[in-house]
Amino acid sequence: MDVKPGLNGDVNNEKHTHRPATIAGPTNPMVTPLLTDLYQFTMAYAYWKAGKHNERAVFDLYFRKNPFGGEYTVFAGLEECIRFIANFKCSKEEITFLRETLSPTCEDGFFEYLQGIDCSDVEVYAIPEGSVVFPKVPLMRVEGPVAVVQLLETPFVNLINYASLVTTNAARHRFVAGKSKLLLEFGLRRAQGPDGGISASRYCYMGGFDATSNCAAGKMFGIPLRGTHSHAFVSSFMGPDEIIEKSLKSHDGSRTCEDFIGVVQTWLSKLKRLSILKGVFAETNQSELAAFVSYALAFPDNFLALVDTYDVMKSGVPNFCAVALALNDLGYKARGIRLDSGDLAYLSCETRKFFQTVENEFGVPGFGKTGITASNDLNEETLDALNKQGHEVDAFGIGTYLVTCYAQAALGCVFKLVEINNQPRIKLSEDVSKVGERILCRHPFSESKRAYVVPQRVEELMKCYWTGNIDKKREELPTLEANRERCAQQLDQMRPDHMRKLNPTPYKVSVTAKLYDFIHFLWLNEAPVGELQ
Amino acid sequence: MDVKPGLNGDVNNEKHTHRPATIAGPTNPMVTPLLTDLYQFTMAYAYWKAGKHNERAVFDLYFRKNPFGGEYTVFAGLEECIRFIANFKCSKEEITFLRETLSPTCEDGFFEYLQGIDCSDVEVYAIPEGSVVFPKVPLMRVEGPVAVVQLLETPFVNLINYASLVTTNAARHRFVAGKSKLLLEFGLRRAQGPDGGISASRYCYMGGFDATSNCAAGKMFGIPLRGTHSHAFVSSFMGPDEIIEKSLKSHDGSRTCEDFIGVVQTWLSKLKRLSILKGVFAETNQSELAAFVSYALAFPDNFLALVDTYDVMKSGVPNFCAVALALNDLGYKARGIRLDSGDLAYLSCETRKFFQTVENEFGVPGFGKTGITASNDLNEETLDALNKQGHEVDAFGIGTYLVTCYAQAALGCVFKLVEINNQPRIKLSEDVSKVGERILCRHPFSESKRAYVVPQRVEELMKCYWTGNIDKKREELPTLEANRERCAQQLDQMRPDHMRKLNPTPYKVSVTAKLYDFIHFLWLNEAPVGELQ
Repeated sequence: MDVKPGLNGDVNNEKHTHRPATIAGPTNPMVTPLLTDLYQFTMAYAYWKAGKHNERAVFDLYFRKNPFGGEYTVFAGLEECIRFIANFKCSKEEITFLRETLSPTCEDGFFEYLQGIDCSDVEVYAIPEGSVVFPKVPLMRVEGPVAVVQLLETPFVNLINYASLVTTNAARHRFVAGKSKLLLEFGLRRAQGPDGGISASRYCYMGGFDATSNCAAGKMFGIPLRGTHSHAFVSSFMGPDEIIEKSLKSHDGSRTCEDFIGVVQTWLSKLKRLSILKGVFAETNQSELAAFVSYALAFPDNFLALVDTYDVMKSGVPNFCAVALALNDLGYKARGIRLDSGDLAYLSCETRKFFQTVENEFGVPGFGKTGITASNDLNEETLDALNKQGHEVDAFGIGTYLVTCYAQAALGCVFKLVEINNQPRIKLSEDVSKVGERILCRHPFSESKRAYVVPQRVEELMKCYWTGNIDKKREELPTLEANRERCAQQLDQMRPDHMRKLNPTPYKVSVTAKLYDFIHFLWLNEAPVGELQ
Repeated sequence: MDVKPGLNGDVNNEKHTHRPATIAGPTNPMVTPLLTDLYQFTMAYAYWKAGKHNERAVFDLYFRKNPFGGEYTVFAGLEECIRFIANFKCSKEEITFLRETLSPTCEDGFFEYLQGIDCSDVEVYAIPEGSVVFPKVPLMRVEGPVAVVQLLETPFVNLINYASLVTTNAARHRFVAGKSKLLLEFGLRRAQGPDGGISASRYCYMGGFDATSNCAAGKMFGIPLRGTHSHAFVSSFMGPDEIIEKSLKSHDGSRTCEDFIGVVQTWLSKLKRLSILKGVFAETNQSELAAFVSYALAFPDNFLALVDTYDVMKSGVPNFCAVALALNDLGYKARGIRLDSGDLAYLSCETRKFFQTVENEFGVPGFGKTGITASNDLNEETLDALNKQGHEVDAFGIGTYLVTCYAQAALGCVFKLVEINNQPRIKLSEDVSKVGERILCRHPFSESKRAYVVPQRVEELMKCYWTGNIDKKREELPTLEANRERCAQQLDQMRPDHMRKLNPTPYKVSVTAKLYDFIHFLWLNEAPVGELQ
């Protein structure tokens, strides 16, 4: 692999389509040219004052270390960056604010210049969104007038950092859970703000989740939605006497059960009398039963009950089974239960046994396979522990640890000037010069660690996603589904030992001999005097 | 302190003003009724179907554990909740989406009902924003029709969780840094999404920070802005030859220095020749010098230079001093330097010595006190370590660890049904019934741990912030400045041993005998059969 990006050379690629007339603005309307650090504007002024503002600069966006102690990262957030620059324009109000904020000595001409700028002279090359990427390899290369590209630094890094971090986190949860499990993102309430929640839903879906609880994200991005009821719903009922409308039509519409509660109560008695369940439960909680019946009456096709408000095995599961069996009488198939507390491995196995007992004792085919969803502070570790202990969970609802990226709440993407006026630039700061020798010994800087490789596949890493030049080809922005698929395909190509949580095998990124020499040339040119022998 | 909230009884309080005609909508336009979990809508349907939707319910919002291993939390996010409900209304488009999303068996009447709801029948009581709060004490009490209040759960918890978490984090950083230091929030690029960044700026300011780098937040909330230049600015210059316009007017406008670079070069030579600095530095980096000169020409009143692009003591500080001395000749006072890498304790002390040497050797009064700003992955621990080592930093720029709340990325606020139709409700789940005895032994449930106290001050904890009832008093939403001040005052009243990072003294919240008895009554009523002797 060659990390040096360039134009997409594949001229005959049929995927290139005509440029869309317009690209929609950022998903979050708060993403405006002012969503940047003040120093981007002070620098823009200093560049302008020095007559340097139109010098052609190239910046690379990359990160230095994979998150979560892993050996891979999924790149995400590109679409939002492109939507941002495609619509980049300072409003009059923003200019007025900047004029008041910057020094009174700033000249009027600068604000006229700011008023006029857009990104028609900027070009963005990037790795496709949803790709698996590695440290120090540029994810995006942004070229354009230095003052304009500088203004893009903060929003770009903001839009890429969290998007890539949470997509990676989702992919890691999917890896531990395995492909057969349903993964539901339930994080909105614990996310870092409203669009922390909305982006989490979008990018977790990209990273391999199946659905979200977040209605706004479902509407915005077409992500499947999931959700049934909470503990409050259960607590809000006093008992079955509350239920006034007790009738339920059968699934095929052929008949009506006038007293659905009565049927449920009968099933509950039958369950209680089963000798095999003797001692498992006695009286179940009646407010819970009322809540389940009400929910089933509202959603007979989609009955999924939260069974841990009082006691899972003594109340929740028997109550659920009684309602599910009554629904079954009317031709409905209950969806299942959700566990939100307690020992999920133990409770899911006990519940599965209960379901199988019902299937066997009452001859209800398939009842043993009724769905079990688990939630409650799940993360990579707890999923792994559940796998080791053995469990019977079919679907996991994951919130806090997923969407806040609790294990590592930030990805440190940087945006580095690599070229100005066709002059390559490198920054060797205090930290680097102190530990320079050590950094040089590591890939891709180690002269002793090299090998001839026979490429199995050669891919251009970067494609052009934004250019104002009408004669240049520009990639269309893929759909979320396409990015999700790309992500899944790329993860499938990874060796599992690079993916595992504990001590993953380091993934090696190499550079060509030409690039290696070039990095050394720059290093020697810019190193402080006296630092090198 | 009594945790039972109530109406604000202080009828003569002059702070009550007339109800504003309108309350602005949420800061982030993405905060709509759809920004909620799907199950809030499925429950709303089930309540509606059961004819229960208008039952009067009371929900408490609280958290169970202080974040960051501390003994306090700052409550924030209230204003956004009120702005949300004051404008709560489902759009036609949202209703259409919900109709497509919920089961096809859902009745039309429900969607007509949804179309009609607003929050005029909801009341919100809350502790004032910016207050210091403690676990298990309700922060908000929301009363209203159960189906409507249920819809508010997710957005309220989303808006309170991160706001309170990051305000608390800011307050903790302020506590370690001390009152005399300037604290700058620099986190936009690492925040979890755009409004992760914008809310971080707002709430860090509330929690005690002095300024932000985030222009959007500066404009939206009137927070002071700070920022100068980055490493890229330094790298973008090749050398002083690039600078074409070299003249600079003196501060009083009385004269013009035609060759500012020449003056800077002269000062650099003088510095180099100082016997006391012999061996400290030789040739400084010329692209850095050009960048500093350009920045000074653009902002002579506000010259602050990032000095670690190449080598702090051998290049950055001498270059800064040369420019600062040239500015001084023209009547300008340089603001200072910023360190963004390396050993900040050591480098700040060395820089201070250098500044003092300049003051003494060249007789520039006050030069020794030139500002030193430090950044680079700072957090509570590094601030504490800097304090212990001794440092000369005047201002800290803090990003990643502050805004992502890296040490603990989520606060687990919950929204619990406590009353419906005037019936108190309590949930005793699997976890609680297993460990019930232990929980009961802890404050405020421990019968043996009690004491007579003589109150020093009695305060109503909650005030009414939202009611549709025109005859009830409603608190006006305080300004950000007022909330910031409240926060500072409340933190000042805390004993320092409750505030310290390492082993803080537990802060004790007690309940009245009446409330204690009531909790026990509920517990006994709802505990699963057989669990108690």
